[in-house]
Amino acid sequence: MERKTRVAIVGSTGYGGVELIRLLQNHPKAEITSVISSSSAGAALEEGFPHLTGVMDRPLDGVNAEEMAQRADVVFAATPSGVSAKLVPELLAEGLKVIDLSGDFRLKDGAEYEQWYKHPAPPAKLLEQAVYGLCEVFGDRVKEAGFISNPGCYPTATLLGLIPALQAGWIDPGSLIIDAKSGVSGAGRGTSLQVHYAEINENFKAYKLNKHQHIPEIEQALGEIAGEPVTITFTTQLVPMTRGIMATCYAKMKGNYNEQEFIDLYRNYYTGRPYVRIRGAGIWPATKEVAGSNYCDIGFAADPRTGRITIVSVIDNLVKGAAGQAIQNLNLMMGWEETLGLGCTPVYP
Amino acid sequence: MERKTRVAIVGSTGYGGVELIRLLQNHPKAEITSVISSSSAGAALEEGFPHLTGVMDRPLDGVNAEEMAQRADVVFAATPSGVSAKLVPELLAEGLKVIDLSGDFRLKDGAEYEQWYKHPAPPAKLLEQAVYGLCEVFGDRVKEAGFISNPGCYPTATLLGLIPALQAGWIDPGSLIIDAKSGVSGAGRGTSLQVHYAEINENFKAYKLNKHQHIPEIEQALGEIAGEPVTITFTTQLVPMTRGIMATCYAKMKGNYNEQEFIDLYRNYYTGRPYVRIRGAGIWPATKEVAGSNYCDIGFAADPRTGRITIVSVIDNLVKGAAGQAIQNLNLMMGWEETLGLGCTPVYP
Amino acid sequence: MERKTRVAIVGSTGYGGVELIRLLQNHPKAEITSVISSSSAGAALEEGFPHLTGVMDRPLDGVNAEEMAQRADVVFAATPSGVSAKLVPELLAEGLKVIDLSGDFRLKDGAEYEQWYKHPAPPAKLLEQAVYGLCEVFGDRVKEAGFISNPGCYPTATLLGLIPALQAGWIDPGSLIIDAKSGVSGAGRGTSLQVHYAEINENFKAYKLNKHQHIPEIEQALGEIAGEPVTITFTTQLVPMTRGIMATCYAKMKGNYNEQEFIDLYRNYYTGRPYVRIRGAGIWPATKEVAGSNYCDIGFAADPRTGRITIVSVIDNLVKGAAGQAIQNLNLMMGWEETLGLGCTPVYP
Amino acid sequence: MERKTRVAIVGSTGYGGVELIRLLQNHPKAEITSVISSSSAGAALEEGFPHLTGVMDRPLDGVNAEEMAQRADVVFAATPSGVSAKLVPELLAEGLKVIDLSGDFRLKDGAEYEQWYKHPAPPAKLLEQAVYGLCEVFGDRVKEAGFISNPGCYPTATLLGLIPALQAGWIDPGSLIIDAKSGVSGAGRGTSLQVHYAEINENFKAYKLNKHQHIPEIEQALGEIAGEPVTITFTTQLVPMTRGIMATCYAKMKGNYNEQEFIDLYRNYYTGRPYVRIRGAGIWPATKEVAGSNYCDIGFAADPRTGRITIVSVIDNLVKGAAGQAIQNLNLMMGWEETLGLGCTPVYP
Repeated sequence: MERKTRVAIVGSTGYGGVELIRLLQNHPKAEITSVISSSSAGAALEEGFPHLTGVMDRPLDGVNAEEMAQRADVVFAATPSGVSAKLVPELLAEGLKVIDLSGDFRLKDGAEYEQWYKHPAPPAKLLEQAVYGLCEVFGDRVKEAGFISNPGCYPTATLLGLIPALQAGWIDPGSLIIDAKSGVSGAGRGTSLQVHYAEINENFKAYKLNKHQHIPEIEQALGEIAGEPVTITFTTQLVPMTRGIMATCYAKMKGNYNEQEFIDLYRNYYTGRPYVRIRGAGIWPATKEVAGSNYCDIGFAADPRTGRITIVSVIDNLVKGAAGQAIQNLNLMMGWEETLGLGCTPVYP
Repeated sequence: MERKTRVAIVGSTGYGGVELIRLLQNHPKAEITSVISSSSAGAALEEGFPHLTGVMDRPLDGVNAEEMAQRADVVFAATPSGVSAKLVPELLAEGLKVIDLSGDFRLKDGAEYEQWYKHPAPPAKLLEQAVYGLCEVFGDRVKEAGFISNPGCYPTATLLGLIPALQAGWIDPGSLIIDAKSGVSGAGRGTSLQVHYAEINENFKAYKLNKHQHIPEIEQALGEIAGEPVTITFTTQLVPMTRGIMATCYAKMKGNYNEQEFIDLYRNYYTGRPYVRIRGAGIWPATKEVAGSNYCDIGFAADPRTGRITIVSVIDNLVKGAAGQAIQNLNLMMGWEETLGLGCTPVYP
Repeated sequence: MERKTRVAIVGSTGYGGVELIRLLQNHPKAEITSVISSSSAGAALEEGFPHLTGVMDRPLDGVNAEEMAQRADVVFAATPSGVSAKLVPELLAEGLKVIDLSGDFRLKDGAEYEQWYKHPAPPAKLLEQAVYGLCEVFGDRVKEAGFISNPGCYPTATLLGLIPALQAGWIDPGSLIIDAKSGVSGAGRGTSLQVHYAEINENFKAYKLNKHQHIPEIEQALGEIAGEPVTITFTTQLVPMTRGIMATCYAKMKGNYNEQEFIDLYRNYYTGRPYVRIRGAGIWPATKEVAGSNYCDIGFAADPRTGRITIVSVIDNLVKGAAGQAIQNLNLMMGWEETLGLGCTPVYP
Repeated sequence: MERKTRVAIVGSTGYGGVELIRLLQNHPKAEITSVISSSSAGAALEEGFPHLTGVMDRPLDGVNAEEMAQRADVVFAATPSGVSAKLVPELLAEGLKVIDLSGDFRLKDGAEYEQWYKHPAPPAKLLEQAVYGLCEVFGDRVKEAGFISNPGCYPTATLLGLIPALQAGWIDPGSLIIDAKSGVSGAGRGTSLQVHYAEINENFKAYKLNKHQHIPEIEQALGEIAGEPVTITFTTQLVPMTRGIMATCYAKMKGNYNEQEFIDLYRNYYTGRPYVRIRGAGIWPATKEVAGSNYCDIGFAADPRTGRITIVSVIDNLVKGAAGQAIQNLNLMMGWEETLGLGCTPVYP
């Protein structure tokens, strides 16, 4: 029997970390050999996460690059922005393959990183080296990579929704407005008044309008596709639910396209990509239809009255928007079948 | 002591009806003399609504215009579209003042009504006669009226958010995109898979993109303000919560305005209007901040990068979007103080 | 015009405090003359609570007993346990009437207080002086009082549900089991993992089984009614909702009573008490039926198979379980009509 | 390669049916060869369940026992009570193995069935033949069976929580009170006011007190274990969440046991059973900790003050309470490893 690839997860006590643990249970070629937490080293994971009792009984390890290199072949860094910037260079220096889930290596321009993230940027060489792991678009680069920067949750939903039309030249790059909505798990497990149940429940709220740090990441990828700088209007909003993102994207059409033409364009673009599903005409996806799964579902409304196209794109922010896409990147990077460990049918209802 | 004005409520077993009953409990000049339901006549209201036990113990009356004329001075018609079209002419013929909460008398153009509502339009004369009761904008007309068509929930949030800027000429009428979200009570109390708890909970879904029957109502009012036809892109979405609407409105600015200028413009426009509150710069309202109350709260994000303004407008769909605004219309129509019976502070959390 | 009674609210930035502010807006004989917060003195209340913009624009005062005595006649202390123990003696020394919403003065036995609350007990003399303000049971004492200890949320629902049957001798005091459920606002506005939205949503959890500090308060009142010590089994559980408590109470019947007999007994006991409503046979109250209101609704299931009675009692934890009952106590203490300021019909749905 | 066992699912458009489809995707020895619906035969499953697009694209078959016998080896009947009673005899006559998820074959006494279910009972011979598939208790019988009656959701949580203590003689069978709470998916996908989102959200309600049809099923199994008739007090309550059941069970202890003794007793009883997890002292399970998984988690509170034990037992009603346990029964019946297809780690948060 073939030896499994050994993976370590840094940030195992965050929501991204435990989701990696959940999904990797069913991965036939990878096994978790270390779960790591800077804050809880030595404790049992099940103390904070009783749902993992009997699933992952390994005690938490501390953060130590050298030890990781002994225990693992690949590291998932499910660490906060700012932390990855310091840790990942050490991991790469140890010869580890790295999939980083933070935002630290997504922007190619360090100055832009510092402007939006308010942290010192990682070394330019590493920003250059990191491959932006949007599998359905940049999968060919991922296959050659040893260091992957996993896309953010909002960018994943937005980019998968916009890129085929933008690449086809069907929409005006100067007209893009994205009205995005997220479940609360996207804010992480840290405590604050902003995630207090009584403040969120029965409430819909907008935050960080045009200020969210995912904006430059989206503009960078759209700009590469469009071949020109792209500037977007981007609204982020919190939905009283735990999981799910919907990006409702608006654009001016550059021709008189109808819905079916968009559907055909997208189905063609995503041919052979198992995790993007295009809805038929007059049907739009809902976040629950992808909950717990690695799918991104997309639907369209083309309005001849205004000449605008509305594109609705949904994902589970913790799966396709984080842990699931990270595993998809692992699979591509290792030359495995893209779907390994990702056979998680949406949990409905 | 002055005799109170007698009001009847048709459609007392719908959500709009019971909200009228809740709010009118504290009205000093109006008293409910008849609660009416076509489906449940003779039954006690508390059978279907135990929360009203001891609050409104009157048995439900049947729908009879002549009886209403004997029992009441004013009728609130909280009836579905199509039903009001038939009932209201009878009520007016009896000499009753009418505040209609359905969509049947909101459009001036009967042909447009039939296109969007799929019912035969009411008589053109009545469409003409009905005053569109958006109090903060058309309050002067309401004061002269005896027959008021109460605005829809989506239009109320949208119009209060857009009109001051549109009237000032600060935004391009051809650029308007409204991304609207509503709690589930907006769908009414009828049963269907679409409002099944397990289908809605932990779910965010889009529906009727560019097809919602509130679109022509919004375009009609915006067109009147702009002095030219206005066509909008309008997305409706269901939030897993019971009450609340947010209209996130996007427009191209016709000048280089900043947030504070918008704030000042709106505060000036709404001076003396107690139910519109304008947030300060960098703050946006959340739906819970108006829950159970008659407020419409508005905030802004002006983006110099794109030249667009984002306007966030929230209401409680059952209060400012239905029963509360109906009572506000009653007050204006009767020449009373605008705030009578509406001292319902938001219920928070 | 009669001068209104001036009231101050200490703890105005907690959920109990803002609920007092909401309800007192409609009180005809009381006016808020000071809103007080130890942590936010000097700030505007609307900074933390935008829903109060235009409702309560007064800046927050600091905690100073002497100043309160100048500004107010009555103080509501909506302060945490431990804080009231220190503050209330100062307020009483200034000659203020006090209604304390903390648990500090509910137990007559200081030793028991220290055992359950883990704080030093207030002076025995004050524990003796404090009148336990369960209005429907001890209202006569409240009318004579100047210092009231407002009952806890769980005790209010439980005691109103059990006392009539216990006093009538229909149930065995040694058989009492209370399975209680609460919305999350009962935990207050402080932040912790326990109230993180993503941990609470889609979750039902038990906590502090047989250890909740409300247990001795319930046992003390039941013991007084029964004329003998009463020991209960008490389970507290968190429901994924903001407001509402249900106490499901189980007892062995001491005779062969049916539901209608219980209904009659309770309706008789609560005759003339506007805030307790007894459901008919085969109907049980739900928490939403009292949301936002001062009602306690009660229903019964008598089981001849087991000889047990199940009593279901619901309240809004922030109204009847806190701010509403505090105002009801104010009304009784001042000799006013019991219902002043409490005309808040349940908000449904 | 071994041929997979072919399974058919009747009732594929209910929540139990789609959950079977989800879980069986990852079963290495079973494959779905027919998805069946009486109401939607011929339609694509994804029309009603877009989340299954690309997962199960097979069109729905009609209900026909003969065809099932050609297509499948085993049938899961996820059909309503009353329907199974008629269908299952036909399936057995065709020589099919059957796992029935309805309540029709759970009671051995036909008269009792008719009293609680209000349908005519199935033939006594089949009631006798059906093996009650509570795997951890009656697994040995399941291994010999060809026709299994899958336990109800409330009974599964309740029985796994009570049986070890009852069998050990540690608790008084005459003292049992179960306060049970369920998410809304337990009510099925049918529409009614009872499952309307706006009526359920922010609401906790009791229903069918002492009248739920799962009561005799629980009493039958407890009676067999106790060796004497057992009568319970049983409360069912609806929690505003989609999935999850908590059974909070109360019993008089027959000795002076502490929590750790209960923990040891239960860990011993469930040794080797992978789907029951016993929490440590002072910790109780929450429903989210088993969401989407086949686990039943149990915790204890022994109260020396009252001599009572409180046992908290949680499951996902659609997995361990329906589809998951059905697959566990399939595995045992077929002589396979108990865990096949059930490697679904709880989805958290």
